[in-house]
Amino acid sequence: MTHDTVITGARVVTASGTTICDIGITQGQIATLGSGLTGTEVIDATGLIALPGGIDSHVHISQPSGPGIEMADDFISGTRAAACGGNTTILPFCLPEDGQTLREAVAAYRKKAEGNCMTDVSFHLIVKQTDPVTLGQDLPALIQAGYTSFKVFMTYAGLALSDRQILEVMAVAKEQNAMVMVHAENEDAIEFLRDRAERKGETSPYHHATTRPVPVEREATHRAISLAEIAGVPLTIVHVSNGEATEEIVRARARGLTVFAETCPQYITLTASDLDRDGFDGAKYVCSPPPRTADEWPKIWAGIEQGTFDLFSSDHCPFRFNDTAGKDAPGARKSFRNIPNGIPGVETRLPILFSEGVVAGRLSLERFAAITATNHARLYGLYPRKGAIMVGADADITLWDPTITKPIRQEDLHHGSDYTPWEGFEVTGWPVRTILRGRTVMQNGSPVGAPMGTHLERTAPDMQV
Amino acid sequence: MTHDTVITGARVVTASGTTICDIGITQGQIATLGSGLTGTEVIDATGLIALPGGIDSHVHISQPSGPGIEMADDFISGTRAAACGGNTTILPFCLPEDGQTLREAVAAYRKKAEGNCMTDVSFHLIVKQTDPVTLGQDLPALIQAGYTSFKVFMTYAGLALSDRQILEVMAVAKEQNAMVMVHAENEDAIEFLRDRAERKGETSPYHHATTRPVPVEREATHRAISLAEIAGVPLTIVHVSNGEATEEIVRARARGLTVFAETCPQYITLTASDLDRDGFDGAKYVCSPPPRTADEWPKIWAGIEQGTFDLFSSDHCPFRFNDTAGKDAPGARKSFRNIPNGIPGVETRLPILFSEGVVAGRLSLERFAAITATNHARLYGLYPRKGAIMVGADADITLWDPTITKPIRQEDLHHGSDYTPWEGFEVTGWPVRTILRGRTVMQNGSPVGAPMGTHLERTAPDMQV
Amino acid sequence: MTHDTVITGARVVTASGTTICDIGITQGQIATLGSGLTGTEVIDATGLIALPGGIDSHVHISQPSGPGIEMADDFISGTRAAACGGNTTILPFCLPEDGQTLREAVAAYRKKAEGNCMTDVSFHLIVKQTDPVTLGQDLPALIQAGYTSFKVFMTYAGLALSDRQILEVMAVAKEQNAMVMVHAENEDAIEFLRDRAERKGETSPYHHATTRPVPVEREATHRAISLAEIAGVPLTIVHVSNGEATEEIVRARARGLTVFAETCPQYITLTASDLDRDGFDGAKYVCSPPPRTADEWPKIWAGIEQGTFDLFSSDHCPFRFNDTAGKDAPGARKSFRNIPNGIPGVETRLPILFSEGVVAGRLSLERFAAITATNHARLYGLYPRKGAIMVGADADITLWDPTITKPIRQEDLHHGSDYTPWEGFEVTGWPVRTILRGRTVMQNGSPVGAPMGTHLERTAPDMQV
Amino acid sequence: MTHDTVITGARVVTASGTTICDIGITQGQIATLGSGLTGTEVIDATGLIALPGGIDSHVHISQPSGPGIEMADDFISGTRAAACGGNTTILPFCLPEDGQTLREAVAAYRKKAEGNCMTDVSFHLIVKQTDPVTLGQDLPALIQAGYTSFKVFMTYAGLALSDRQILEVMAVAKEQNAMVMVHAENEDAIEFLRDRAERKGETSPYHHATTRPVPVEREATHRAISLAEIAGVPLTIVHVSNGEATEEIVRARARGLTVFAETCPQYITLTASDLDRDGFDGAKYVCSPPPRTADEWPKIWAGIEQGTFDLFSSDHCPFRFNDTAGKDAPGARKSFRNIPNGIPGVETRLPILFSEGVVAGRLSLERFAAITATNHARLYGLYPRKGAIMVGADADITLWDPTITKPIRQEDLHHGSDYTPWEGFEVTGWPVRTILRGRTVMQNGSPVGAPMGTHLERTAPDMQV
Repeated sequence: MTHDTVITGARVVTASGTTICDIGITQGQIATLGSGLTGTEVIDATGLIALPGGIDSHVHISQPSGPGIEMADDFISGTRAAACGGNTTILPFCLPEDGQTLREAVAAYRKKAEGNCMTDVSFHLIVKQTDPVTLGQDLPALIQAGYTSFKVFMTYAGLALSDRQILEVMAVAKEQNAMVMVHAENEDAIEFLRDRAERKGETSPYHHATTRPVPVEREATHRAISLAEIAGVPLTIVHVSNGEATEEIVRARARGLTVFAETCPQYITLTASDLDRDGFDGAKYVCSPPPRTADEWPKIWAGIEQGTFDLFSSDHCPFRFNDTAGKDAPGARKSFRNIPNGIPGVETRLPILFSEGVVAGRLSLERFAAITATNHARLYGLYPRKGAIMVGADADITLWDPTITKPIRQEDLHHGSDYTPWEGFEVTGWPVRTILRGRTVMQNGSPVGAPMGTHLERTAPDMQV
Repeated sequence: MTHDTVITGARVVTASGTTICDIGITQGQIATLGSGLTGTEVIDATGLIALPGGIDSHVHISQPSGPGIEMADDFISGTRAAACGGNTTILPFCLPEDGQTLREAVAAYRKKAEGNCMTDVSFHLIVKQTDPVTLGQDLPALIQAGYTSFKVFMTYAGLALSDRQILEVMAVAKEQNAMVMVHAENEDAIEFLRDRAERKGETSPYHHATTRPVPVEREATHRAISLAEIAGVPLTIVHVSNGEATEEIVRARARGLTVFAETCPQYITLTASDLDRDGFDGAKYVCSPPPRTADEWPKIWAGIEQGTFDLFSSDHCPFRFNDTAGKDAPGARKSFRNIPNGIPGVETRLPILFSEGVVAGRLSLERFAAITATNHARLYGLYPRKGAIMVGADADITLWDPTITKPIRQEDLHHGSDYTPWEGFEVTGWPVRTILRGRTVMQNGSPVGAPMGTHLERTAPDMQV
Repeated sequence: MTHDTVITGARVVTASGTTICDIGITQGQIATLGSGLTGTEVIDATGLIALPGGIDSHVHISQPSGPGIEMADDFISGTRAAACGGNTTILPFCLPEDGQTLREAVAAYRKKAEGNCMTDVSFHLIVKQTDPVTLGQDLPALIQAGYTSFKVFMTYAGLALSDRQILEVMAVAKEQNAMVMVHAENEDAIEFLRDRAERKGETSPYHHATTRPVPVEREATHRAISLAEIAGVPLTIVHVSNGEATEEIVRARARGLTVFAETCPQYITLTASDLDRDGFDGAKYVCSPPPRTADEWPKIWAGIEQGTFDLFSSDHCPFRFNDTAGKDAPGARKSFRNIPNGIPGVETRLPILFSEGVVAGRLSLERFAAITATNHARLYGLYPRKGAIMVGADADITLWDPTITKPIRQEDLHHGSDYTPWEGFEVTGWPVRTILRGRTVMQNGSPVGAPMGTHLERTAPDMQV
Repeated sequence: MTHDTVITGARVVTASGTTICDIGITQGQIATLGSGLTGTEVIDATGLIALPGGIDSHVHISQPSGPGIEMADDFISGTRAAACGGNTTILPFCLPEDGQTLREAVAAYRKKAEGNCMTDVSFHLIVKQTDPVTLGQDLPALIQAGYTSFKVFMTYAGLALSDRQILEVMAVAKEQNAMVMVHAENEDAIEFLRDRAERKGETSPYHHATTRPVPVEREATHRAISLAEIAGVPLTIVHVSNGEATEEIVRARARGLTVFAETCPQYITLTASDLDRDGFDGAKYVCSPPPRTADEWPKIWAGIEQGTFDLFSSDHCPFRFNDTAGKDAPGARKSFRNIPNGIPGVETRLPILFSEGVVAGRLSLERFAAITATNHARLYGLYPRKGAIMVGADADITLWDPTITKPIRQEDLHHGSDYTPWEGFEVTGWPVRTILRGRTVMQNGSPVGAPMGTHLERTAPDMQV
């Protein structure tokens, strides 16, 4: 049998282990793992590592961000950056505009994506209203249609739900077997601290961090877990930033609850001091939860190494810095409160973790595969089609060269933002080829070919991570 | 020197130890501890134990309870029952009627108390509104006037404050050096569970307990502690009912926070099954938090023995059972939601703890004194005038006969309620004489003399408990 | 390419996931995973599950057991039973006879194994003497020769090492990069309790359990971990039986130590009450540590599910029951102290865990593979040759039929013992074919073919489990 | 009634509180607490604080220390220093010489004390042999005679008992209702580390600390607790030096065990770096367990503040520095192993804790009284005669002037050593008068009067601390 494509000579990584063999691809799927395979196209990957294509399950793209504010990435640039960063699937969030129903929002968002994607995509929903139509009709219908995960917010005016609303959303998730994701920060406490800070004249970007201290996140984390316990549903806590919140997850599991957890590159590489950089430069690092102190890094690493964190995502939420539709929004220099919230990261997530985790000896290749791809696929209903190099799965494969060392530079990136928070950050180990369903979409750091990404319907969560 | 009164021969208990000596009382104060003292009046207490008069810092009396509902105790019956139960001071809560300011409420409540008290009294405030006048003027003025503690609620429609409001109240406490007490149950979660229970037809008194499960209390306990951490204030968690909430307090202290905690007789002697008694009898046990399972009792005892609990109070909140102004309120038999919330206990708190704690060998006399009197005095600004048998302190002394065994019986009690939740509960060790500032106010279980209790102004909390 | 053998249609399990594909085997190794593969021999495995052949890394066979006592299994019966229970590799312990050097013991043990094995085998060493020749010459030489793991005992007269001796052994392990395994029970405490029990006439088999209570194991577990911390080496705690000992492992990891842990079927299915069975039947369950109460089972399960336990082994240590060279040894009926210690289990380990874990919904197939094969291979230096279904690995594969339900019965087993502790234990899911390096060694519960097992030299531990 | 002595105007501290009153003393006992008392002798203590006389329950005096080595204090100098440091009772350890029975040792030690003491004294026993006569006859007889506590060592060749021996000693304690104290360090681990250090040439005093690292103490602490759990006895862990060992005590209590704990001034003020001082000066700080890093101080303080530590003692174990019978023993400069182990501290314990604890705001006066006197009296059977200012108790009172600030200086001390580890340590708050049974034995830092101290028989431990 001659395959469409054969990748030869790579160290092939799955969660079960690493072995040198050929990968035979036919009709976009992995048909054979073996040796001496033949193919129409042959990719010599000797010396390279073949990992499952990255899945970034926490990405914001073309998301409504308030009047006059615009995200730096649409589906074209966002998926291009993702592919160049070694990803083959991303899951952005679909947020209804005011007045829009969830269904309308999904339809509109699908339209934006269509034909523009260099990776496959699928959408989480953001539930910001809990009226009977949304909870009783739209949400169940969308879950049935394959949108099997949604996020609720405990912070941000206009998005934050009350505990009662969160419980109502969880009740739907329980009935429909969907996954609830939670952004856990206590809105009331943040508002109290913001008002107090402003009264004291503490308005620089740095005070974005001081007004969202660790207890604000620990409190909401424990509360979200308690609500899930009361509602009787599993839960995913996204973007955990510190040791105390991590401990809440450990405690919940010890009580027998099913809680999953995600962390991000910013919580092992950046600190609140970055928000205190000269001039307005701190705004480049404004995201929520904010980066903490370097003391928290080893606690997050411990959580990664010991399996507390199932998911390592980017929380890519890009704005341009020199742009009044971005970080330099009206009022932003007068108060941190007006700085659009979020940082770009979809293109740098995998290289940072590969370098700091695998090359630095903290993570095995197998565990890297699990928290950057396999677990995302499982928890969000894309498995076994996505997330593993396995016969029968989509041929989503990223080839890594573990020997390349170079710094991250904005000029080398493909996202829509005009800066990266990791400018100059030295990375060893870079993806050199991204293959989506058998077709190369990135080579040597540059996008290749026309957008062939498609929207993926998803099944119910698979909790075995 | 001849004292006004001398108590001879008792085993005198203070937190430092127990010794047999005479107590000489002059002008209502303890003037001398020694032997061979002389006095105009001599009380022979040979064979008895002299303990500091009980201070019950969690009592509800004549509190507005909704249209048509009336508490079973006013100051006359409430303080009479308190004195008969071995107490010399109680601290009821002053709750404004709708439309009333805090100051008006205090004035009116003072009037109700005046001339009617058989124990000394002092009022905690309940803060249910957070308008600028209340927080900016009334509350500070009242603290200055000696009302140095106040309670906030996280449950009950009309009383529950938002997290933001609680933080604002805490900010006042911080500025004015007052003590915040918190009733910790998550209102939203309770409402979610109540609505769900009612939809399922689960409306009997027992479902008062099932709709306020442990996680509802644990969540609010952690949240209250987190808010205090964010505001930078000490905190007292009242009426802790279970092991998980207790653990939150232990964890908070391990983080270095100043958190005090209270528990009550119902959490070491009653269970949720009591709410499931035949007919409507379960209503007799409806209080919040509800009694749990007997598995929680040893966890509460461990907290008492190991010092997690600083305070042992009654949470006396009496309603009559056979009374449509009480437990049998309109709609109460149709849904637990309409049953007035609370149980009587001011008269039985001390005998229950003495019997189950001291006589059963779990508690030393010294620790009994600490958690029934001394710590209450310290934390609520009555120390060193109240709370200890010590030269210079008020002569508030209760004489106990540790040999009397008899069951608790409604017919022997003096409160205004028509039942006691502990009917038939066997108790060994009863107070036989209560002495308030040198004057006997109870003897052999019966009230003695005219009401001589006075209102006490209090100082700032003394955190050394 | 035509393979020697092709297994078609099975659900193939690796730690990365489960997929239906063909497995092509050539020259005893897995050559290809794919579909439509061709082979000289074709095994139709439709409806079956293909798992990596079981590795049982805790087995006692033909081990010197004191004068007049004989183990029920030699290599012939032990590996036959292992193969029939779905295993392809076992790791028995090589224990020197008195007066024998470690090297001599290894040579003699190799001779016993040679030509007699139906599975592959490799030997852990037992270090019971710490003289300069043993620690300075023999042990290093044996590690170099591929015996990269050894066990020390903290109990059993004649085997138990002092803390100082254990540290000296650990120092060798550190220098030579080998793995130390520890049997953690406090010998002194056991002897104290045994003497006391005998003085009281408590001599029945049940008192084997009462004289080895949980604190005896928890203490030694913490001590072993502390010694490893002081010596600076990784450690494997074998046969953990209860929640408190498990917690010590969790605590050690939280301190950053590298500690691995093993548990066994007896600790999730048997209890101390089994030792209290009528007559002398309790002797059938005498093993160390003893089974505990059923309350401990969920704690062990939690440890299995949450990854505290890396290894699930049998601690197969078989004696015959009706045999004065076995359980009915001289004096055994007079005192539990004389009962040979251990139970048979190499043939039942995998079916019990498959049924109670996978079929009962507690374990995924992937995690089952990890703790019954992959992790054993990694930690004891057999990976990647053994432990995973992966191109390039040995074709050690067990086919399971998840639909068969039948009880465990001694009459169906192949070990040398005359009883099984699990007589009548109902199991769903049985191995129907065991394939060792491409050759079938068990089919439908019966051994097939001549012994083809070989001794395996091992490499240094791979800590990525 | 005219008292022998009246102390007027002091702030009188008991664990129950602090009040200004007179103390009337008659026949060496506290007869009256009151005001306007009359006495033959009147001590005006206006402005001073009256605390219970200090009880130092961990003192080594005239203890056999090996050939050629002599302790710097006998009963004359030791009790003189104790009195000058605010103590009225000390409890040194009676250690048999080789070949001496416990009874003989006690008789000889009594003789050394007789007529030479400026404080009251009572002896703990050190159990270093466990032969039938010692455990079956001598120890029970001595307990009956009032020696109700004894220490076992887990370290030091010649003193260290095996686990089995410790269990046998505990069994006697259980039968006789006595208190076992334990010195918890793992001898084997220390010897392993010492040998290794010496092989590397690490022989300076500093390596006394590096060869007794925290895990050595944590391990032995957990083991001692486990042995007590197995034997079913309460236990006192002496001289706890670090956070991890403290945590073991917290965990033990959480399991419901009765464990008491002691710490000392060296563990909140000195560090291992002190052992690294220039030249041989580090020898001045050699004691066991060694001082740790300053990071451990707050953990010990937290244990003091939260009640983990019941006892604050000195572990006074004095040697002269410039003396070949002391720190400069033969071989001491060649290896830390030969440096006599211990530091002087009986005279500085109370001022250091008063200054760092009470004056620095960490401790209330009441808690200071508890951990420096009351709890020692209770746990070691001297209560209520000793340990509290209470009618009927011995008039053992120390008057403190909280306003005096001066450094600790060897030239101001009265012990037999020629140095103090706290030279130059600034202290605020000094004892200005020590009163033993009504008689002044120290005034303004100087001893007063002839030795009047007596030996105290003790009762069983009182566990209510």
